[in-house]
Amino acid sequence: MDVNATSDAVLNLLQFIGTIAFAVSGALVAGGRKMDWFGVVVLAVMVAVGGGSLRDMLLGVTPVFWVQSPWFVILAGLTALVTIPIVRRGLHYQNYLLLSDAIGLAVFAILGTQKSMGVGTNVFVAIVMGVITGVFGGVLRDVLANRAPSVLYGDIYAVAALIGCTIFVLLAQTNIPSGVVLWLSIGVVLVLRLIAIIRKWSLPKFNAQEED
Amino acid sequence: MDVNATSDAVLNLLQFIGTIAFAVSGALVAGGRKMDWFGVVVLAVMVAVGGGSLRDMLLGVTPVFWVQSPWFVILAGLTALVTIPIVRRGLHYQNYLLLSDAIGLAVFAILGTQKSMGVGTNVFVAIVMGVITGVFGGVLRDVLANRAPSVLYGDIYAVAALIGCTIFVLLAQTNIPSGVVLWLSIGVVLVLRLIAIIRKWSLPKFNAQEED
Amino acid sequence: MDVNATSDAVLNLLQFIGTIAFAVSGALVAGGRKMDWFGVVVLAVMVAVGGGSLRDMLLGVTPVFWVQSPWFVILAGLTALVTIPIVRRGLHYQNYLLLSDAIGLAVFAILGTQKSMGVGTNVFVAIVMGVITGVFGGVLRDVLANRAPSVLYGDIYAVAALIGCTIFVLLAQTNIPSGVVLWLSIGVVLVLRLIAIIRKWSLPKFNAQEED
Repeated sequence: MDVNATSDAVLNLLQFIGTIAFAVSGALVAGGRKMDWFGVVVLAVMVAVGGGSLRDMLLGVTPVFWVQSPWFVILAGLTALVTIPIVRRGLHYQNYLLLSDAIGLAVFAILGTQKSMGVGTNVFVAIVMGVITGVFGGVLRDVLANRAPSVLYGDIYAVAALIGCTIFVLLAQTNIPSGVVLWLSIGVVLVLRLIAIIRKWSLPKFNAQEED
Repeated sequence: MDVNATSDAVLNLLQFIGTIAFAVSGALVAGGRKMDWFGVVVLAVMVAVGGGSLRDMLLGVTPVFWVQSPWFVILAGLTALVTIPIVRRGLHYQNYLLLSDAIGLAVFAILGTQKSMGVGTNVFVAIVMGVITGVFGGVLRDVLANRAPSVLYGDIYAVAALIGCTIFVLLAQTNIPSGVVLWLSIGVVLVLRLIAIIRKWSLPKFNAQEED
Repeated sequence: MDVNATSDAVLNLLQFIGTIAFAVSGALVAGGRKMDWFGVVVLAVMVAVGGGSLRDMLLGVTPVFWVQSPWFVILAGLTALVTIPIVRRGLHYQNYLLLSDAIGLAVFAILGTQKSMGVGTNVFVAIVMGVITGVFGGVLRDVLANRAPSVLYGDIYAVAALIGCTIFVLLAQTNIPSGVVLWLSIGVVLVLRLIAIIRKWSLPKFNAQEED
């Protein structure tokens, strides 16, 4: 595949899905913290555009993507506003949080790798950039809401992104159409993450002695 | 008004005011955390230049502003050093913290919108960039000092910046002189924020069920 | 000395040492937090490349350094993987954490000042950029692991970096060979920091009244 040959429609659709997913995850965490509704919107927008913004700043592709495409900011804000009344009805939201976070992680990790390859980085950098793009929105969300960051404590979290991004760069060397490669790689991350959640799979923990 | 026609003297005066205000807020929070005096200086500088630095990196206007104008760093550091002995005399500082934070928020939000329009972004992006510039210094301060971030939990906080930045971009389309537009918009943010503090106004809270 | 005349071999060796040191510090903190092994790798990489990435983004020298030199990412990850089994044997690691953090602080602060001068900033900015580069990796580590940031609470921490960076820019005006200036300045930061740890030296604390 030619990494730059992916149709803009597919990329925009994926960015659309990832933005909604991460905005929902931000709104749900905000809900658990009793923020006012605009605080919820702010957190949702930061989660949704944070990873891509950091990716673009690291790559030097500035202004960052949402300066050119501000509708992603609007989409994230509207998603948060829609999420609030739904959740207020007493939804038991923990599972929705895990699901929306997993979708955002999967989509943004693969899109991050794709964009990085598109500006000519080598494949290793593209994989690292993908993992960063996928996890950073969640890092912002968790740090601001004072939760333990999923990327550090989540079962099979960043490693799922790593595997998916690696599959993406491998398949990108083949003749498989880019749309197929994108969806397939995203699917791998998502399935790995969801299985880890459901089966409580995890990597071995690193138990050093406690700090003083 | 022509957004680039504002005199440098006015912009520097505003940046001067905002820098002092946010440096004071950083120093006061640091005081509440029993840092040593250089930790106080470091936190004050980060609060004072953090928002503008993020704005410049997102816009791709690099090196960031204080590389060209390092005296803002010096000003923030000196402000922190002056704040320390004053506060040590046993000042009950909570109200000064709220006030200095409100001034910094108001000034940097409007300056952020002005700079964003000045480099040619559309008005929606300019508003978002203004809100980011206004709130980010406080986010850094609160995360580093392990406080609940004002932007997420404060009553009428980011929304005050949003309203002021929106008024700025609207008035920027008129013939009102740019200096008047700047001061007026900053005044709106400040007044909204102070009324919210004094009257304990707030937006509806988003109470989802607690997380597990 | 000519700040750009330092041999790449010396700069790479220093970057090598700093990367390992900060990766070890990240892995040790991660161990104290019971992360899984890939969470440890992620934290170690962020600590090791975070300061230099922020420096490059602030200076507008993008893509950031590790996009061109991805082996620093690999080095940090491998260092974390090697640290895990060693620490698992029950090492009492608090002293190793302080030592590795001090080495990373010293090396990255001076390299940050050197790079900043190399792209033509004035010496004051170069000192500030050095302090930022030195402390930011540790800030990331501490915020993500929910520890009190060393830069704010550590005894003689950022101020040791400040003194070393100042000595670097002063000696850079002389005819002393750049290699000597680099090692000497790094040594100053390291010795100051280690003495502060061992002798429990600290700057006066800033005790304001407690917040409400």
